[in-house]
Amino acid sequence: MKIKTLILYLFFISTIACSSSILANDEPVKPIAPVKEINLGQVELGKKLFFDPRLSRSGFISCNSCHNLSMGGTDNLKTSIGHKWQQGPINSPTVLNSSLNIAQFWDGRAADLKEQAGGPIANPGEMASTHTLALDVLQSIPAYVREFKQVFGTTEINIEYVTEAIAEFEKTLVTPNSRFDQWLLGDENAITSTELAGYSLFKNIGCIACHNGESLGGNSFQKMGLVSPYVTTNKAEGLFGVTGKDMDRFKFKVPTLRNIELTYPYFHDGEAATLTEAVSIMGKLQLGQNFTQENNAKIVAFLKTLTGDQPSFIIPLLPASVDKTPKPTPFD
Amino acid sequence: MKIKTLILYLFFISTIACSSSILANDEPVKPIAPVKEINLGQVELGKKLFFDPRLSRSGFISCNSCHNLSMGGTDNLKTSIGHKWQQGPINSPTVLNSSLNIAQFWDGRAADLKEQAGGPIANPGEMASTHTLALDVLQSIPAYVREFKQVFGTTEINIEYVTEAIAEFEKTLVTPNSRFDQWLLGDENAITSTELAGYSLFKNIGCIACHNGESLGGNSFQKMGLVSPYVTTNKAEGLFGVTGKDMDRFKFKVPTLRNIELTYPYFHDGEAATLTEAVSIMGKLQLGQNFTQENNAKIVAFLKTLTGDQPSFIIPLLPASVDKTPKPTPFD
Repeated sequence: MKIKTLILYLFFISTIACSSSILANDEPVKPIAPVKEINLGQVELGKKLFFDPRLSRSGFISCNSCHNLSMGGTDNLKTSIGHKWQQGPINSPTVLNSSLNIAQFWDGRAADLKEQAGGPIANPGEMASTHTLALDVLQSIPAYVREFKQVFGTTEINIEYVTEAIAEFEKTLVTPNSRFDQWLLGDENAITSTELAGYSLFKNIGCIACHNGESLGGNSFQKMGLVSPYVTTNKAEGLFGVTGKDMDRFKFKVPTLRNIELTYPYFHDGEAATLTEAVSIMGKLQLGQNFTQENNAKIVAFLKTLTGDQPSFIIPLLPASVDKTPKPTPFD
Repeated sequence: MKIKTLILYLFFISTIACSSSILANDEPVKPIAPVKEINLGQVELGKKLFFDPRLSRSGFISCNSCHNLSMGGTDNLKTSIGHKWQQGPINSPTVLNSSLNIAQFWDGRAADLKEQAGGPIANPGEMASTHTLALDVLQSIPAYVREFKQVFGTTEINIEYVTEAIAEFEKTLVTPNSRFDQWLLGDENAITSTELAGYSLFKNIGCIACHNGESLGGNSFQKMGLVSPYVTTNKAEGLFGVTGKDMDRFKFKVPTLRNIELTYPYFHDGEAATLTEAVSIMGKLQLGQNFTQENNAKIVAFLKTLTGDQPSFIIPLLPASVDKTPKPTPFD
């Protein structure tokens, strides 16, 4: 009896393991994995830096201004607002799951999150500070100096440590446990039949060719306007700006579809206001398909199952400036 | 024996109660009390609204932009940045402990937090929306409609509910348990002898005349430049703007000194960058006193004991806009 029970048990376990692994391994979309091997000291420091507007010249703009973690890691604007209300050149991509991207920025000009983090601080159109000024601010604040010492073992703050800490925090901003991931992991009731039909369409029609993997995107550069040209007044030229190769003109990093319901408006120019519009344009331009209203709605329904658990943490308290801290100059 | 023990016990208890009540009742500064009788549904809704930049025309500025709860409930700027980077007319007062104020704004033009909350939303120099537009945005978002229904019992969102919820959230933003309050409540070791000397000076020299009570301020209007006139290019005229009475010219609500180490720069024009500077100017202008460097430092040391427990909560997640939600127009 005991052996029989054991055999039955093993059979049961292997069936579950097998059915899970079929789902996880055979689908071209993979569940988002919770984050591993994180340096918590860096995360806590990086969280403060991410929310600290003193990294900007004005003292008003932080990483969180354009990658707002209350709003899907974006600003939900077509293009962002920079120093002195300058209009940004491109739509702010979500910071959520950005650690899974092949490279950072729409044109991939930063290899990773650490390299990315230094960009906006010193970009005259964004935070408009300099690395020197930002470091002077941090170095003047004893509580920051202590925290850098604790985390990096030295009281000399440099931009490598600043960007490393921000990147480490950003690595925690993954969004597992979406309804679609629950389905991928074996819960057949996690999505509706309409949503499942949307996923089937998404695969069969070819969206999956670019939007696959853990992020449903973020892992390749593709031409915007593959079948028909994309008409826009936006001047961004994508990967061409990085490689200088003609074949890379209008190639952009494929955006992730994770949390897409939260990260409107869509495309690098932010010109698609709704998912319905974005799906319709993508169908035409990238696949030469005119989706029926019904099929479009099914795909949109599927896309809305991709919203995962949002980052949840206590609002960070920033250490106060002291008398010698360089003052912000928003109006100079 | 039992009766003797009881008598000793009662004597012991009454001594503690008495000594506590001497401290709490006899000092002109009172400890901040933790908040009571709060409507938690309104608080959670109000927290979202406080962080929601869609209450502004640009979709970029929220209450938290200028009353940043990571930075002492202020923006740490001389005067704030409004819609399209307009320079604000006056220093943003902290939202911390603002429920204890006699009235809201530097000139007291709003009777309470609820009345205050409606102001910046519709102020063309601040969030630059209109109540109509802000309500249209909220009413378009099903998750907000559901939450208003749950909290206020109706699906018709109006500005009264919006400001009531924000005000209820703001009531939770008190900061009890500062080291000075610990001292007031009987812990003699909570502050140093220098800090205590600073408090004695603060009382004896007369700062306490205006900076008293739970908030060390916020409970009266006083002329800025009582003994000598205050020289500033700032055009604010204070209470005069509300009453039209000549005697009210340059009368401002006395700012709270709670968390003053975090709420730099100081005065209604934000022109005092440091506490040392602010204490020195106050001494001269309001009391006709030239503090020695040593006495100034003692008062500053005392002031730094007034930083209490900062509000601590999970960053709110904002319900996503839907297709019909009016779009932000930052650059129109």
